[in-house]
Amino acid sequence: MKEVSSGEMLSLCKRRGFIYPAYEIYGGIAGLYDYGPLGTALKGNIADLWRRTYVLQEGFVEIDGDTIGPEAVFKASGHVDNFADLSVTCKACGESFRADHLAKGLHPNPDSLSIEELQGLLRANGVRCPCGGEFADVEEFNLMFKTKIGPGAGRTGYLRPETAQSIFVNYINLYRHCRERLPFGCIQVGRGYRNEISPRQGVIRLREFNMMEAELFVDPEDKSWPRYGGIKDRKVRLVPNTDGVEVEMGIGEAVDRGIIGNETLAYFIWVTYDFLTAVGIDPARLRFRQHLKAEMAHYASDCWDAEALISFGWTEIVGIADRGCWDLSQHMRFSKADLTAFKRFDEPKEVERDAIRPKFGAIGPRFKGAAGDIKRQMEAMDASAIHDGLVTVIVDGTPVDLDADHYDVVRVREKVNGVRVVPHVIEPSHGLDRILYSCLEHAYAERDG
Amino acid sequence: MKEVSSGEMLSLCKRRGFIYPAYEIYGGIAGLYDYGPLGTALKGNIADLWRRTYVLQEGFVEIDGDTIGPEAVFKASGHVDNFADLSVTCKACGESFRADHLAKGLHPNPDSLSIEELQGLLRANGVRCPCGGEFADVEEFNLMFKTKIGPGAGRTGYLRPETAQSIFVNYINLYRHCRERLPFGCIQVGRGYRNEISPRQGVIRLREFNMMEAELFVDPEDKSWPRYGGIKDRKVRLVPNTDGVEVEMGIGEAVDRGIIGNETLAYFIWVTYDFLTAVGIDPARLRFRQHLKAEMAHYASDCWDAEALISFGWTEIVGIADRGCWDLSQHMRFSKADLTAFKRFDEPKEVERDAIRPKFGAIGPRFKGAAGDIKRQMEAMDASAIHDGLVTVIVDGTPVDLDADHYDVVRVREKVNGVRVVPHVIEPSHGLDRILYSCLEHAYAERDG
Repeated sequence: MKEVSSGEMLSLCKRRGFIYPAYEIYGGIAGLYDYGPLGTALKGNIADLWRRTYVLQEGFVEIDGDTIGPEAVFKASGHVDNFADLSVTCKACGESFRADHLAKGLHPNPDSLSIEELQGLLRANGVRCPCGGEFADVEEFNLMFKTKIGPGAGRTGYLRPETAQSIFVNYINLYRHCRERLPFGCIQVGRGYRNEISPRQGVIRLREFNMMEAELFVDPEDKSWPRYGGIKDRKVRLVPNTDGVEVEMGIGEAVDRGIIGNETLAYFIWVTYDFLTAVGIDPARLRFRQHLKAEMAHYASDCWDAEALISFGWTEIVGIADRGCWDLSQHMRFSKADLTAFKRFDEPKEVERDAIRPKFGAIGPRFKGAAGDIKRQMEAMDASAIHDGLVTVIVDGTPVDLDADHYDVVRVREKVNGVRVVPHVIEPSHGLDRILYSCLEHAYAERDG
Repeated sequence: MKEVSSGEMLSLCKRRGFIYPAYEIYGGIAGLYDYGPLGTALKGNIADLWRRTYVLQEGFVEIDGDTIGPEAVFKASGHVDNFADLSVTCKACGESFRADHLAKGLHPNPDSLSIEELQGLLRANGVRCPCGGEFADVEEFNLMFKTKIGPGAGRTGYLRPETAQSIFVNYINLYRHCRERLPFGCIQVGRGYRNEISPRQGVIRLREFNMMEAELFVDPEDKSWPRYGGIKDRKVRLVPNTDGVEVEMGIGEAVDRGIIGNETLAYFIWVTYDFLTAVGIDPARLRFRQHLKAEMAHYASDCWDAEALISFGWTEIVGIADRGCWDLSQHMRFSKADLTAFKRFDEPKEVERDAIRPKFGAIGPRFKGAAGDIKRQMEAMDASAIHDGLVTVIVDGTPVDLDADHYDVVRVREKVNGVRVVPHVIEPSHGLDRILYSCLEHAYAERDG
């Protein structure tokens, strides 16, 4: 093992045909790299092994979705509103910087600061551009590449910031394809895009990158996994968020002690370990770090990063998260599509619920021929569909709100075969470029003489 | 063999998990489709066989370049100025249409008309929107998706309309990687983008598509191919542009009779035939149609489309062109990089040329310490470097024009080991989505009962 700087490594990668800085004859663009002949072959081999792991070993299906998506998708996913960094631009030379990077050394945790706090901090410390110029105000900069689909006013589109959304928006197709049973999983290998403000870390921080993402849809009340028993004695290096101290521990022990959230998450931490070490990550330079509570997305119940030790320090190369029902719930809310799964009981159960009973005396005269259809719509709902005393039905394609004159709420007992649930999502998300680059650093050695 | 409509086919593709209309839960977007589990697997298998053909059988290398590129690249390639369709937008409903499509039936060849001619034709015939509304003026619409790279004013970027440009801009890296000898070839499998005005032909006309492109760099004066002899008796169905009549003919005969431009082009027509029939294209529904002179790009010396007969009629699925020195010459002109190859002679040759001889009496006093370097620059040029009587040298990084007081032109005889040439490019370019879809149609059959 020989330490190598990232500069030496990238220079070697270029000479040997692994990775080329993109558009070099036109001066290059920060954050864009092309794969040369050896890099393309290596990337293909890593992706193939990953596919075999998930498709052949774990029974996932694979899809390949579009990289351009309409605004609605990324409103639902939260990227239009929240996928942003704070940026400052020099008034003199026009160069832009990440505001939190400029505040390094001025605050223990600059990326936790608000726009006003960062602004104040930079001003108070008289931070200026390397060119000597003064900075304009700190601004929020959305990190999605934006474009227009079609001519004229067009339709706003974005390049996807992650492949995952292509899977979520295809949930209905995939649920059917997988015979309408939980759990089922889907993978995707493809491009993601992130319009970084000022990327300066080689292939670790790219504007266009390659991801391998798996989305496993599970029963919210059953996060066990059939093959968990076979691997629970395997040991991995964990950094739990309780004390941040690295510890070597059995997968099963970590679940039993409540360190890893559930069996399925734990199983895929093991799968990730097994895959990464198979493609060439040095086990001695690999650990799984649990996100701090403050660092975790608000909807995630647990999240672990596989980190490799490379010349940039400990670097996230895979993230494995229990995302709860967030993704599908959001797309249900924005698209109005039914993204649930039917959970069949072993035996029909007798349940009580508050049903809506249409008042035909009010509906019949008002809606005439459409009344029968409205009645059926209302009978399919239960009381949770009432908002502000109103029930919404569709009449000739148009939503119509009906007040309490049109229905009663009645407690009913009935036999049901199952319930509809919004599946939870367990997501192992891999940065393919980072994995490839880490493999190269971990494989690096020099011979004497 | 059973005829199937494209509507039936796409519906079947969705039910069976081959191809899903993208973003259906948000109403969908014309021209965007996702590959489902079976489609993704089939697409992967087709691409793998193609890679094996080009990399293992023909010795090409493979790269994987960025899909986002800066404006300069597409200025050089001609896409910023010429990659456009004519569009009309309805003043009432806002929908846009391809102007030439609206003129079908009004003119034998509407896509050959100028913007003014089309405008006149549509007006004269009172063509209106299906909604009854009146159209605004015909406009040119560039078909590249445009975006901004980075924050602030940013830098204009485009999604690549073809993968080929990623190969051309990496020419220097690839030439070195391939040991600086012609011929050498490079392939790429990846996304291309085309912001269609109003795509309505399923996966035949996509806004985001998958390409497999091969760029073969050859000696402009030697378009022979080593394995040509082994395949020249194989027969394919050709539609030459001389009379447009389909004929079954040996590859070699077509070259000998001057129908196919050269051996290399002919060889790759055969490779294409062999590949397409191996993945499932029915030989009885496959032909090679030569572009009409008027249809060919001005720089192409010969171009053939592999066409499959599907429910949309004869449809281009591969294009095989001799693009001459166009691509590299354009990038040399715009980037100022040296994109030539050194063609070594078997024996050194004595040649005559018009050399530039610096006048040291004028250069020395004027440039002092830099004079030696300027002398070396001038001695490396020949008379073709003189424009309007001026020779441009670089002094301290800045170009300086020197007039005839600073040099003489002298005829010299010298021994040279070779010459630098701009390689010609032979390009087999495959529409992966169209190939996959054609395979599905050609495999379609129905059983009775």
